[in-house]
Amino acid sequence: MTTLTSALASIVGDDHLLTEPGPEWLTDASIAGGAASRAEAVVLPGDAQQVAAVVAECYARETPIVARGGGTGYAGGAVPVAGGVVVSVARLDRLLALDPVRWRMRVQAGMTTATVQRLARENGLAFPPDPGAGEQSHIGGNIATNAGGPHAFKYGVTGDWVLGLEAVVAPGELIEVGGPIRKDVAGYDLASLLVGSEGTLGLITSAWLRLIPAPEAQLALAAFYPDTHRGTEAIEAALGSGVVPAALEYLDAHTLALAGGSFPGGCPAGAGFLLIAEADGGLEAARHDRNELARALAVGALEVRAPAEGMATRELWRWRSGVSLAVSARHGAKLSEDIVVPVERLGEAVTETVAIGERHGLAACSWGHAGDGNLHSTLLLDPSDPDQLARAERAAEDLFALAIGLGGSVSGEHGLGRLKSGQLNRQWPAGAVRWHAAIKAALDPRGLLNPGVKRP
Amino acid sequence: MTTLTSALASIVGDDHLLTEPGPEWLTDASIAGGAASRAEAVVLPGDAQQVAAVVAECYARETPIVARGGGTGYAGGAVPVAGGVVVSVARLDRLLALDPVRWRMRVQAGMTTATVQRLARENGLAFPPDPGAGEQSHIGGNIATNAGGPHAFKYGVTGDWVLGLEAVVAPGELIEVGGPIRKDVAGYDLASLLVGSEGTLGLITSAWLRLIPAPEAQLALAAFYPDTHRGTEAIEAALGSGVVPAALEYLDAHTLALAGGSFPGGCPAGAGFLLIAEADGGLEAARHDRNELARALAVGALEVRAPAEGMATRELWRWRSGVSLAVSARHGAKLSEDIVVPVERLGEAVTETVAIGERHGLAACSWGHAGDGNLHSTLLLDPSDPDQLARAERAAEDLFALAIGLGGSVSGEHGLGRLKSGQLNRQWPAGAVRWHAAIKAALDPRGLLNPGVKRP
Repeated sequence: MTTLTSALASIVGDDHLLTEPGPEWLTDASIAGGAASRAEAVVLPGDAQQVAAVVAECYARETPIVARGGGTGYAGGAVPVAGGVVVSVARLDRLLALDPVRWRMRVQAGMTTATVQRLARENGLAFPPDPGAGEQSHIGGNIATNAGGPHAFKYGVTGDWVLGLEAVVAPGELIEVGGPIRKDVAGYDLASLLVGSEGTLGLITSAWLRLIPAPEAQLALAAFYPDTHRGTEAIEAALGSGVVPAALEYLDAHTLALAGGSFPGGCPAGAGFLLIAEADGGLEAARHDRNELARALAVGALEVRAPAEGMATRELWRWRSGVSLAVSARHGAKLSEDIVVPVERLGEAVTETVAIGERHGLAACSWGHAGDGNLHSTLLLDPSDPDQLARAERAAEDLFALAIGLGGSVSGEHGLGRLKSGQLNRQWPAGAVRWHAAIKAALDPRGLLNPGVKRP
Repeated sequence: MTTLTSALASIVGDDHLLTEPGPEWLTDASIAGGAASRAEAVVLPGDAQQVAAVVAECYARETPIVARGGGTGYAGGAVPVAGGVVVSVARLDRLLALDPVRWRMRVQAGMTTATVQRLARENGLAFPPDPGAGEQSHIGGNIATNAGGPHAFKYGVTGDWVLGLEAVVAPGELIEVGGPIRKDVAGYDLASLLVGSEGTLGLITSAWLRLIPAPEAQLALAAFYPDTHRGTEAIEAALGSGVVPAALEYLDAHTLALAGGSFPGGCPAGAGFLLIAEADGGLEAARHDRNELARALAVGALEVRAPAEGMATRELWRWRSGVSLAVSARHGAKLSEDIVVPVERLGEAVTETVAIGERHGLAACSWGHAGDGNLHSTLLLDPSDPDQLARAERAAEDLFALAIGLGGSVSGEHGLGRLKSGQLNRQWPAGAVRWHAAIKAALDPRGLLNPGVKRP
C-alpha cells in the first residue's frame, strides 16, 4: 500500500478500498469512455463524512478525484483517464426521508433512479425524470449530468426536481444548499450550478427531491409516417393542438428498420418515421387529450394507433426503452451523440445525421425526444474494427458542428464528459466560456475534481 | 458634466442621461429601500451594445453599476446606496421573436411582465409566473430576482421559464447562454446562476422565454376556516387530494380583517383563515379537479365557495392582488418580508409572525403562497414615525430568525437586496457562503456590479 491508499483505507476501511480495480470501475456505457483509464484506487465511502475525508486526503496530495455513480454514462464523465482515486457512492444508497403528504423525499446519491421512482410510486406519487438505464444509474449521477428522458418534455429534466443538495466540495468540505423548501432566492442558485457539473465542482452525496401526485392515467399513441418530412410536420401539429403531451418521441426510418420488428403489433408497411406521444392526467382528461393529440397526429400519417389503456401503453414504453440495445446489436456497437436543435430544425438534423454517416462510410440513424429537439444521433460500428471507431469519432465531430450550426447544443442530457472536451468552445461565445473557466478555477483551484471532464 | 457623464452621454446620447435624477430613480417599493441613495447618473441605453459600453466605461473607472428594472422590488436591490451609475433598461422593451407554434418568445429585459403575459395570451399561450405589480415590473427584474407569484405553486418561478439569457458581464462584455432550445448540458448552468443574482453578476439585456398552451379553464375556490390550525390542516388535505392545484394561497385572520371587507360576496362571520385554490386545465378536467379540491378543503371549513366560472374567478384574483395595498392603507405603510418555511411549519410561522409584531409593539399579519410555504410576513407602520420603522426593522430580524429556525429561507421571491445583507450567513453553512463569495469574486473581481446587494 502507498501512503495514500493506507490513508484512504483508514477512512473507509480495508473492505471498501480496491487498489487493483477491474474494468467495471474504469469504464462507462460509451464505447471509448474507458480507453486508457487507470486508477490508483477505488474507494466506497459509507457516508457523506467519509466522502469529505477522502476528498480532503486526495486534495491535499494533489490526487485527482473522480466521482462515480452507476457507470451508465455515455460521455466518459466517470472514467479516470488521468488516474487518481475513483469515489463510488454505491454504498450511499439509503432513503433519508420520505414525506408523501408534502411531495418530497431525501435520498443518498447512490440510490438507483428506479428505486427513487418506485418509492414515489408506492406512495401515490411520481418522480418524473426517466432517463434510460434507470435500474443501474444512480440519482447522484442523474443529477451530476442533469439527465432527461422521454417525460422531460412535459415535466423537465432531473435538475427541475431537485430542492436541495448536499455535496463535498474542494478542498474536502461538506456543504448543503436548499432543503425541504420549494422556493429560495436568498443566495445564488448553487444547487443549479452543481446540477450538470459532472463531478467537476463537487461530489453530490444526497439530495432533496420534489415529487408530484402520480397521474391517474398515462395513455400513449403511436403514429407512423411515410417519411421524416411528414413526421416532423406532425410534431408541429401536436404542439399546436393545445395539449401539453407528457412525452413526444420519434424514431427515424433507419432506427425503425433496426428496432421496428419487435414493435407491439408490428409496424405498417412503408413506415419511415414513428412518433410516440403520451397524454396523462385524470383518466377523463387523459382520454380527452389523447384524442386531441390523435387528431393532430393523423395529418399525413399512415396510421395512428392508440394502444389499449394500461398494459399496452407500458408495453409500448418497454419497447421504446429497448431501442438503444436493438440498434447496438446490429453491428455490435454504436457511437451515440445526444445533440439538441430548435424543434423546427429536427427534420434537417435527422436527415443530416444519416448523410454524415454516409460521408464517413458508416450506417447512421437517430431517435429521441422530438418535442425537446433532442436527438440520439447514432453511428453503427463493429467494435473490433479500430478504423470504424476512428471514422465514427470524426463523424461525431460533424454531428457537433451540425447541432451548433442549427443553433443547438452538443449535449442535451449526457453531458460533455471527457469525450466531448473542447466542444463547448465551438458552441458558446468566448465570454461565456471565460465565465465557465472562472467558476471552475474559483471552486476547484487545484483542478483535481474530475480533471479533463467538462472542459470547454 | 464630469468626464464620466460625458463619456456616458456619448454612448447613450444626451437625451438618455440624467445627471440629477429624481427620487423615482433612487427608490423601490420598499419603505426603507431608497434611504440615503444617490447616483452620479442614470442612463437609459437603447440597446444591449450600449449597456455593454456603459458597463465597460464604469468598470474601467471603478464606478458602481446598479441595474434597474421597473423599481417594484421589496429588498432595495435596485437602489444606488453606494452611488455610481444606475442603468435603466426601460428603453429595451422590444419583442425580439415570438414563435407560438414552438411555445417560445424572446424579449428585451425592459418589457413589462404584463406585456409578456399579454403577448403570450394573445397567441393562445401562457407565461405562468405572475408576481405582483406586473404592470410596472420588468421581465429582466423578474429574472434578476427569480420572482414567483400565486401560480408558481404548479408552474414554478420565473427562472423555470427561462431558456436562455443575454447579459452584460464584467468588465463590460455581452454574453449569451442558452437560446431557443429546451435542453442543454454542454456547460455549467450559467443562466440559472444569473437568475436571482440581483444584478450582482451581470445585467440581463434579453431573454428567451418558454411558454405553454394556455389552460382552457381556471377555476378558483375560496375556503374560510375559523382559525390557522384548521386552515393549515386543510392545506395538507389539498396536497393529499391527488390534484396539483394551480395555486394555493392563504390569508391569516389579521389580513382578512384588513382586506376582507372587499372580498367578493363578503366573508362569512367568524372567518379566521382563508385559502384560495385554483384548478386549471381543460374545462372538464378543471371542473373535476376543482370538485376534488373542494372536497378536501371542506374538512374543518366554515364555508367553501366556488365562484362562477370566468369573470368571478378573475374577480377573486383581482381582489387577491389588492391585498398588499389594503394592508398598507391601514397605517400608511408596511414592512413585508417574504420568508419561506417547509409547508408543514406554515401554521407556526403564521402564528409567530403576529407574536413577533406584538413583541415589538406593532400590528402584524401574513398572507401568501401557502403551498410553497412562502409567507408575506408583514408589520404595519406609520411611515412618519421613525421609531415604528426602527422597531419594524428589529422585528424583521426576528422574522428571519424564525424562518431559519424552522428550516426555511429568508427570501422566497424578493431576493436579498440591500435590506437583507448579512442574512444569508445565518441561513447557509460556512462552506456554501464561501462558494457564494468565491463566485462573486471570480465574476466581478472589482466588486462594482450592484455593490452591497446580495451580500451573504
